[in-house]
Amino acid sequence: MTTTQSTPQVQQWVHLAQQLRIDSIRCTTAAGSGHPTSSMSAAELMSVLMSKYLHYDFDNPQNPNNDHLIFSKGHAAPLLYSMYKAAGAISDEELLTLRKLGSRIEGHPTPVLPWVDVATGSLGQGLPIGVGVALVAKYVDKLPYKVFVVLGDSEMAEGSIWEALDHASHYKLDNVIGILDCNRLGQRGETDLGWDTAAYAARAKAFGWTPIVIDGHNLDEIDHAFAHATSANNGQPTLIVAKTIKGKGFSAIENKDGWHGKALPKDMAEQAIQEINPQARSQTYPVQKPENLQPAAEAEKKPLELPKYTVGETQATRKAYGEALRALGAANPDVLVVDAEVSNSTHAEDFGKAYPDRFFEQFIAEQQMVATAVAMSVRHKIPFASTFAAFFSRAYDFIRMSAISRANIRLVGSHAGVSIGEDGPSQMALEDLAMMRAVYDSTVLYPSDANQTAQLVALMAAHPGIVYMRTTREKTPIIYGPDEVFAVGGSKVVRQSDKDEATIVAAGITLHEALKAYDQLKSDGITVRVIDAYSVKPIDEETLFAAAEEAGNKIITVEDHWPEGGLGEAVLEAFTERAGALPTVVKLAVQSMVGSGTPAQLMEEAGISAHHIVQAVRALVRGV
Amino acid sequence: MTTTQSTPQVQQWVHLAQQLRIDSIRCTTAAGSGHPTSSMSAAELMSVLMSKYLHYDFDNPQNPNNDHLIFSKGHAAPLLYSMYKAAGAISDEELLTLRKLGSRIEGHPTPVLPWVDVATGSLGQGLPIGVGVALVAKYVDKLPYKVFVVLGDSEMAEGSIWEALDHASHYKLDNVIGILDCNRLGQRGETDLGWDTAAYAARAKAFGWTPIVIDGHNLDEIDHAFAHATSANNGQPTLIVAKTIKGKGFSAIENKDGWHGKALPKDMAEQAIQEINPQARSQTYPVQKPENLQPAAEAEKKPLELPKYTVGETQATRKAYGEALRALGAANPDVLVVDAEVSNSTHAEDFGKAYPDRFFEQFIAEQQMVATAVAMSVRHKIPFASTFAAFFSRAYDFIRMSAISRANIRLVGSHAGVSIGEDGPSQMALEDLAMMRAVYDSTVLYPSDANQTAQLVALMAAHPGIVYMRTTREKTPIIYGPDEVFAVGGSKVVRQSDKDEATIVAAGITLHEALKAYDQLKSDGITVRVIDAYSVKPIDEETLFAAAEEAGNKIITVEDHWPEGGLGEAVLEAFTERAGALPTVVKLAVQSMVGSGTPAQLMEEAGISAHHIVQAVRALVRGV
Repeated sequence: MTTTQSTPQVQQWVHLAQQLRIDSIRCTTAAGSGHPTSSMSAAELMSVLMSKYLHYDFDNPQNPNNDHLIFSKGHAAPLLYSMYKAAGAISDEELLTLRKLGSRIEGHPTPVLPWVDVATGSLGQGLPIGVGVALVAKYVDKLPYKVFVVLGDSEMAEGSIWEALDHASHYKLDNVIGILDCNRLGQRGETDLGWDTAAYAARAKAFGWTPIVIDGHNLDEIDHAFAHATSANNGQPTLIVAKTIKGKGFSAIENKDGWHGKALPKDMAEQAIQEINPQARSQTYPVQKPENLQPAAEAEKKPLELPKYTVGETQATRKAYGEALRALGAANPDVLVVDAEVSNSTHAEDFGKAYPDRFFEQFIAEQQMVATAVAMSVRHKIPFASTFAAFFSRAYDFIRMSAISRANIRLVGSHAGVSIGEDGPSQMALEDLAMMRAVYDSTVLYPSDANQTAQLVALMAAHPGIVYMRTTREKTPIIYGPDEVFAVGGSKVVRQSDKDEATIVAAGITLHEALKAYDQLKSDGITVRVIDAYSVKPIDEETLFAAAEEAGNKIITVEDHWPEGGLGEAVLEAFTERAGALPTVVKLAVQSMVGSGTPAQLMEEAGISAHHIVQAVRALVRGV
Repeated sequence: MTTTQSTPQVQQWVHLAQQLRIDSIRCTTAAGSGHPTSSMSAAELMSVLMSKYLHYDFDNPQNPNNDHLIFSKGHAAPLLYSMYKAAGAISDEELLTLRKLGSRIEGHPTPVLPWVDVATGSLGQGLPIGVGVALVAKYVDKLPYKVFVVLGDSEMAEGSIWEALDHASHYKLDNVIGILDCNRLGQRGETDLGWDTAAYAARAKAFGWTPIVIDGHNLDEIDHAFAHATSANNGQPTLIVAKTIKGKGFSAIENKDGWHGKALPKDMAEQAIQEINPQARSQTYPVQKPENLQPAAEAEKKPLELPKYTVGETQATRKAYGEALRALGAANPDVLVVDAEVSNSTHAEDFGKAYPDRFFEQFIAEQQMVATAVAMSVRHKIPFASTFAAFFSRAYDFIRMSAISRANIRLVGSHAGVSIGEDGPSQMALEDLAMMRAVYDSTVLYPSDANQTAQLVALMAAHPGIVYMRTTREKTPIIYGPDEVFAVGGSKVVRQSDKDEATIVAAGITLHEALKAYDQLKSDGITVRVIDAYSVKPIDEETLFAAAEEAGNKIITVEDHWPEGGLGEAVLEAFTERAGALPTVVKLAVQSMVGSGTPAQLMEEAGISAHHIVQAVRALVRGV
């Protein structure tokens, strides 16, 4: 390690780096697994950062002035936890519970720890979220806090990293500082670019960042890089490209392949500690607290006045989404909106035009869009993110991880199903319900009319977790009055009699097919119950159970979605919670890969039109 | 339009560009929807390309020497179809069926047309797939064909594009040529970088490409750019950055916002044709055929000798995957393998070490990995792609689209479920079964032992469509002999008697918990049937129906997955297809967000251990 002067400060940095390395080794060896070598490469970088540049109030993680430190390379968690110990935030005992059942010190960081903003461990996600936090800092909070993101070199191969770099420069986020721990070695060998720090620097520069290439073990170079990065005010984010050595500090494993994600055996750990500095142990290095500034004053909250639609007219639920979102924006200044270049289709533009300061265009970068929403949740805002429902599949890993992050985000996908018509299957979401239902603690809503949509948008704003709403491209009849009340977990019985022979469960566009089928069936002397299951998850079990009991124990579900994982399976799932045999359930769902056509033609071809519902009901209750 | 000389060739280019524009307008106006303006901007680029540089045998789309032309900006389909008409491949009549029910001329290109390699329309996918085709050309086919990819500027914001640029330069693919139609306007306004062609060029250069910035309406510049690009042999791919005008050719809409994805009304279409050139109509411009070369000679096919494992020993199914894949590699030279930097965990390295020429490291870029697999399918190879099962969620949009592309790809995800243990939830796939089931015509396999895994790997190689296998991190007991036979759509009844009181349906790691539960229940006097549902989709309905009938009409499903969309719902789904009394189903699945812990601890905490199965069975059959 080269340092020009051995001042007390430098001595402290050296000592802290030694302690961080030793603690990274100790806790992983105690756990019997984990990533010591990926932690050791960044020890000097973190030593200088936490000693001099980071401002963080560990007693008050919610202090709005705190800097944010995100380990995008989440597998370097042992280093992060060792920093928390060095800062006095956790005890040595707790550090040594790493990876044990019930410990907050998990294999990868999660917000179970109050100082962790978001879960990482799926690579390439920390930087996009960090860029989102920096966006909020600059344009919403208007506070000078910084966002530091520690990156691994392997994860620079993830496209999401480049979405983040692009967005950070577009939004002139000179308050975000990437720290690329370029240790050359990935999990199974050399990375794509190895130690070619010049290549990383050139790429970052081309993406509008200021790259600073340093020796990541040289304290002076690190100090200068952070000094430069934290004083940047030219609108350019900074990427510190630090050439480092994996396993640095313990010569037996330095820069050696085959040591990724492996804890040292006890004897090697002891050897390593001897080589690093057996004296460097359990000293506390307090982190500076931030200035006490106030976030930008918010507009006052006002009563919510949702748009109202007239029963009997038609409107697309996507349009009602935009109008309700605008109303929500008027009422609540915490509402922020992002969209991936399709706001004139999702109708998020209705909000964007009214509140341009709270609308952030994310261009065609769905991963970054979801990351920005997660970042807004980190800063306690109320984010809504919208794109075509099909394109949320681009961000599924981000959505999955946002559940682990305990984020509160609202996702709204338009253009669902074959009923979009002519554009063809690439634009049709036919798996979004399955995808979103299979997210931990998620909520999945699918309104069928404009007033219902408006009400559900208001409910979404207050609902925690990952809340997804599916909207429809086509205009649909307005069947509910503006004062009708809806609930997460609710449903509406829209047709009912005491001689119902079966129940049709539908949602969104298929509800209107179900209503057409109801009329045809009625004229044939068959009376059915029709349920609008607008809350697909949680689903209204009581209403389904009552319908099964009262209407012949026969259910037909119909959905503009593949047969797997959608409304039909949600209905079936409900009955597994109930004692007793299942009802007879006939599922209508999209059975073939359609091409282009009109919405009506494609619903007919897919087998989910009124005509198919009538046939299915007849077969079920009459056997013909 | 500036051209230095009006040679016959130039006159032809001008005329063809006019025809392409007019046909793009005509077919979209006839359809009443579509993207004429996004087609018009690239008319000169495509005119020169198809007249002089493209080599393609339209009569034989399977000619291995054909160049590949991929419209990554799939919404410019009208231009592509107009090129097919100009080349004489489709008639004017067929062109005018654009977006009509039953037409091959869909809203976005799909391989329903024999000249289309892959479906596009979800932006940012054509280039990654094109890069994959170029990889196959250079390293597998060893043929000089070129890959031309037409890109929109909006889609340059997608991270997947930069994964593709990174991989193309890493693999020195000077046979891929990107054509960036930089028309400044996205769907709802200006793109991120607008007409900043220098920024695109700088980024491409930093990613190792040769950028050529041109006026995309200047025929000379286009000609020179293609001449340079198609003769590149320096290992650098070329990106032609063409500054163009959206709607070019019709002054009323040129470079005007608000004209994305809108067909011209009839009167405007007529006006446009008048302005462009009413004479340019329905001329045929034959495309040159390629040289008649043979792909690289393949090794001979040999009989498959799968690895064999001894009943009673233990092995991880992920390890059996690697060993079976290596065996498959020995037998069949068409088998190619890609992995996203984790081949020492997925065990794809077993193949990679044996057949390095057929193993292509994709680094941590799951979207590019799936794209490369799709490209291998385009060239009729047998690709297997592997990563941690959780990280396939990163590529879900690519997987969704690959089904529309009618690709034949095999995806293998390791480290499924809470049973991975200490690494924590970021590494646990708990939604992969739901995600993969909800892919059109997909197959989902989940083996529980090593011999079964090996057999299923062999079946996967021969199975069409999107075939997914989930493997387990932990070693599990080998319960099947090496000669046991398995089938897609099959299952195994592993415990059975004539007094079974209920049926446990499990797969993968939970099958072993079910077997432990069986033993405990038996010693308590309760006999149950145990089914190994290793084929989750299609599921073995007959065996489930028989079990319901013969074993008390009571089923317990147990899976290391969220409750939604996985094995339990697949079992429920089966019963919707059957008439008659339905079973009572109790589903055990992961109910809480676990942290770190040992595999056994986490399966217990999640509610899917033998102990929980025993409790559930007792409650179901004894009411206690």
